[in-house]
This record gives sequence, structure tokens and C-alpha cells, in this order.
Amino acid sequence: MRLQILVASIVAVGISASAAAAPADEPIQVIKPAANINLGLVDLGKKLYFDPRLSKSGFISCNSCHNLSMGGTDNIPTSIGDKWQQGPINSPTVLNSSLNLAQFWDGRAADLKEQAGGPIANPGEMGFSHTLAVQVLETIPGYVREFRQVFGKDKIDIDQVTLAIAEFEKTLVTPNSRFDQWLLGKTDALSENELAGYTLFKESGCVACHNGEAVGGNSFQKMGIVEPYKTKATAGGRADVTGKDADRFNFKVPTLRNVELTYPYFHDGAANTLAEAVDIMGRLQLGKKFTDAENAKIVAFLKTLTGDQPSFALPILPPSSDTTPRPQPFSK
Amino acid sequence: MRLQILVASIVAVGISASAAAAPADEPIQVIKPAANINLGLVDLGKKLYFDPRLSKSGFISCNSCHNLSMGGTDNIPTSIGDKWQQGPINSPTVLNSSLNLAQFWDGRAADLKEQAGGPIANPGEMGFSHTLAVQVLETIPGYVREFRQVFGKDKIDIDQVTLAIAEFEKTLVTPNSRFDQWLLGKTDALSENELAGYTLFKESGCVACHNGEAVGGNSFQKMGIVEPYKTKATAGGRADVTGKDADRFNFKVPTLRNVELTYPYFHDGAANTLAEAVDIMGRLQLGKKFTDAENAKIVAFLKTLTGDQPSFALPILPPSSDTTPRPQPFSK
Repeated sequence: MRLQILVASIVAVGISASAAAAPADEPIQVIKPAANINLGLVDLGKKLYFDPRLSKSGFISCNSCHNLSMGGTDNIPTSIGDKWQQGPINSPTVLNSSLNLAQFWDGRAADLKEQAGGPIANPGEMGFSHTLAVQVLETIPGYVREFRQVFGKDKIDIDQVTLAIAEFEKTLVTPNSRFDQWLLGKTDALSENELAGYTLFKESGCVACHNGEAVGGNSFQKMGIVEPYKTKATAGGRADVTGKDADRFNFKVPTLRNVELTYPYFHDGAANTLAEAVDIMGRLQLGKKFTDAENAKIVAFLKTLTGDQPSFALPILPPSSDTTPRPQPFSK
Repeated sequence: MRLQILVASIVAVGISASAAAAPADEPIQVIKPAANINLGLVDLGKKLYFDPRLSKSGFISCNSCHNLSMGGTDNIPTSIGDKWQQGPINSPTVLNSSLNLAQFWDGRAADLKEQAGGPIANPGEMGFSHTLAVQVLETIPGYVREFRQVFGKDKIDIDQVTLAIAEFEKTLVTPNSRFDQWLLGKTDALSENELAGYTLFKESGCVACHNGEAVGGNSFQKMGIVEPYKTKATAGGRADVTGKDADRFNFKVPTLRNVELTYPYFHDGAANTLAEAVDIMGRLQLGKKFTDAENAKIVAFLKTLTGDQPSFALPILPPSSDTTPRPQPFSK
């Protein structure tokens, strides 16, 4: 009798019985809040993440291209670097990046700490050097004190800088999406249309690559399996790291967490909308032409993956001192 | 008897009796927290302030050049605009800017609302137009809802945009500096050295222009009274607004609130340090060559003007929709 009522009420709210069944064996897992976090490191890393003095110009910070107000991206096809240089590739979101098997589209950095040092010293991005960045920090009394407090050492080095930034980035997970609420048993968290989109997402084969906690980020896959992907971008993908021709156009599968916020899509940022991205993925990766109705269902499902965005007070940066080397925004 | 004890205790903590006397008649007044604030407008204005979609490139927001992590400035001599154009003048701090008699160095905008529209449409700054900015906002469902909630109208216009930004900026006052604590009767809030600096600041004539709640911002004055100021900057100051030759090189006196954070100094950003700025001001405006010891005392006093910095959660921006015009960072 009680079961009858339960089934009736499920039908009444429009959720199919199969969807309400235990989602324990789903290919997508609930995202876990950050754990094992060193809060002193996080506070320091948060300041560094927002500090444009880690760039030659004094204008570009980590947050410029991985903007935490905008899904951890810059929402432009390829990023703007020192002196407005056009970057070669789309800035991937920093949100949930701790879950990636490696960092950058081609996985050339093993982890967040290694990644954090890259843009600082890249002439096309922040245009600085690790030595100069450390020289700047060493002349800022507020940083000197905070590094000493966190690391217990008198000298600042780049490993401390990148370790702190990485620790802050580890906190940038986005739990509590409607999809996760559904995974956790809130059966009315998703609409019938969204659930139909999820079923289609699974049955069409999207989950072969977009699975796990981050709905991606855990493998390298070739961009353009069934049909070649046409792009003006010159990035060779994984082959640039391994030197193997077989790895050409193999890119890290991007996370689909918060994908509603991380437009434009693909490594070249060429797809402006989710509908476009779903259509291209279907045709090029799966040999499947989704109907407009199917496409809309999948897009509706994808929008349920937007989680709680990072919430913290805008960091206040310690001021430079009279001896701090000044930024060089316009020098050659 | 009680008076004797009071005097004795004042002497004991090393504060001179005159300094501890009621500072009610000081030329600098306690800064007041923002009042008469519309919180709905503030929340909306805060998002707009941080939103780079108000620029052509999608990369530059109000916060890029008036960075609230860095004293409401960009800490570079002159700002970086669309396509890395070099600005003609130093970005003044947005902190306490509601107290200015007018906005911009030459006072060409009557108030914060009028100012807020300037950079959006300036080809050398955000490089956009008011029409295009409104077109972008009208296609973002999260903004459409919030504008409707705040203004009770179905259409967004640029007046609403600049009104909201201005309302947020009105909240950016910085009370509770150590100097204000002293003004409010906390006699040990300043050291003897800092108080000596304040006395020197008053007796040397600095207060003639730097006075009131904002320690400046309430008059236009000629840059280079006793000696001409040499600069490569072409800005004509107030004359650019009035067309009168007598107003040439008349600039709005900048606030000295948070001056420790708002380097480099002057309308051309040519003075890197407070010591340099105090020296130049003494010689050019007052015909006074401060000794190193005097200069250091004044600088020590100036650093007591740093107040509580704005404290709020980093705003999360509503995502663009499929129909939102995309930024044009690299187009001609």
C-alpha cells in the first residue's frame, strides 16, 4: 500500500520510475567538496591568483583569463595576453580543474602546481619570469609576512607561489548542481525533459568520454573521430607533448561541469553555443546527427550541471613598497 | 583632581596634550560610512562594475582600471585600454569618489553616474558604445530579471546601467582609518611620529587643498604653482572643459585617503613613491624643500589614512545566452 502511494506520487510529479531509481551506478558521480585543504595556503594563493603584479604589465592576473565571476574562464575564443597578444587556444575553466588527469588542453602540466607557473613566464600570456615575479613579491612587506607565516621560511621561491595558487584552485569545486541533487536522491531536481536529455547523453555515447565526477577531464581523446575537425588553431594537442604522430589532435576531454558558463567551446573556442557544440560533437565524434529536439534535450541536461560557484570575499592585496619593481605595461 | 589624572595619563602614553585635545576643529574630517543606499541597485551595480561584457573586447571591466583589490586603481602610470592602447592619464581611485566635487581629473563629469558612462564608450578605454552595451545586457536573462526587479520596467537603458554602477560606487567609502580613529578620540591610534607628520602637513600648507572628509577632491588647483610641473602628459586639465586659458593645468585635487595604496601619483602617474610625491608637492606647490626627516614624517602621517577596504563577495555574473552578441577582442 505504501509502495503504491509512492509510485503514484512519483508519476504525479512527472518523474519516471526508472529515473527515480537509485542512481548509484550512474557514469557521472556526485562532485565532492574540497577536502584536506590548508587554509593559510588558500588565503595566500587567493591573493596571488588575483594579483596582476605577477605579470610584466601589472595588468594581467590568473583571474583575467580564468575569471571566477564568469565560470572560471574569459568567455572569449582565445585569450588576450601581454600587449594584447592573441592566445593560441581557449582558456579552460579553472573550476573543478583539480579533478583533471593533467593540466592544459594537451596535458603538458602534471598538476595544478605545475600549471600555475606556466602563464606567468609565457611571453604571450603574463610575459614575466619566475625570477622577476619572486623579486616583486619579496619587496612587498604584506606578502613577506604571509609567506613566512605559511611556509616558516625567510625566503620566497616560485615553488611556494605555485603551491599556494594550486591550493586555492583546489577549493574551486562546484558542488550542489541540480544534477548532483538528483544523483543524491532529490528526484524532482530535474525535469522530465532534462532527464530525457541525460538518457540521450548516455545512450548516444557521450558518456564514453564525459564521465566521472567532472563529466570529463579524465582522458585524452581525438578531436574529430568520425569526421575531421576543421580549425584555424595550430595546436597539435597531445602530440606536442609526446612527439608521437598518433597523438595528433588528441586533447584532454573538457569537464562539462558548469558548461553553461564556459562558452565558447572547444580548444579553439569556435563553438559559441551549447547547441552548436552538441551538434558538432554528435557528428564528428559519434557519427550522429541529433534532431533539434534531441539537441535541445541534451542542452537542457547540460545546464543542470551548473553547481555552486566559488563564494569568497574579493581579496585585498598588500601594497607594493618603494623598492618594488614597477610594472612595465608599455616597454618593449 | 580627575582632570589631573586625565592629563597625567595622556602624557604617560606619549601623546601631547594639544594633539589629544578635541580634534573637532581639524581641517580633515572623519569619513562617514555610506548612507541612503539602495541595496538592490548596489547588487546590480556591483555585477556591472565587474562585467567585462560592457567592453568591446569582453576583457575590460570597470574593475580592470579601478581594481578594488588594489585601492581602487590599477597601480600603473596610465591605464591600458582596448587593444592595449596607452591611456593619457592616471586612473584615479574609485574609493571615496562619491565625495569628489566632480569626476575625472578635469571634472568633466558632474557625478558618478555621468562618469560611469564615459569609459564604456571611450574608444581608447572599453571601446564599446552605450547602445551595444545595452544590447548585450538585454540578451542576458539574469540581467533582464534583475533590471526588471530593481527598476520595475521591461526595457534596459544606459541610464539604469550608470545609475546602478554609481550606486555601487557610493558604497566604496573607507572608514575606520587610524587617522579617523584618532579624530574620534582614540588618542593612541597614531604614533608621535605620525602626529608630528600631521602637524607638519597642516603647518606647511598642504591642508589648504587637501582637507575635508576625503583629504582632497573638493577643489581644482593648478599643478605647478611656485615652479612649473614638467610632464609628457598632454592633458590640459580644467581648461579642456572650460576652454579658458586660466584653467590650464588646473586639476581636481586628488583624495589622500588610502594614498598608500594608490601609487603611482599625479595625473600623469609620474611619481612612484609617496616620498617623491611629497617632495614634488612641497617644492612646486608650496615653495618648500622638506628635509628627509620632515618628508618621512609626512609620509608616516599619510599612511594613517588607509581605511577599511571594501569587503564583499566576488560577484557571480549571469551567463550570456545564445543570442548575446559576442565580444570582439581582435577585430578591427
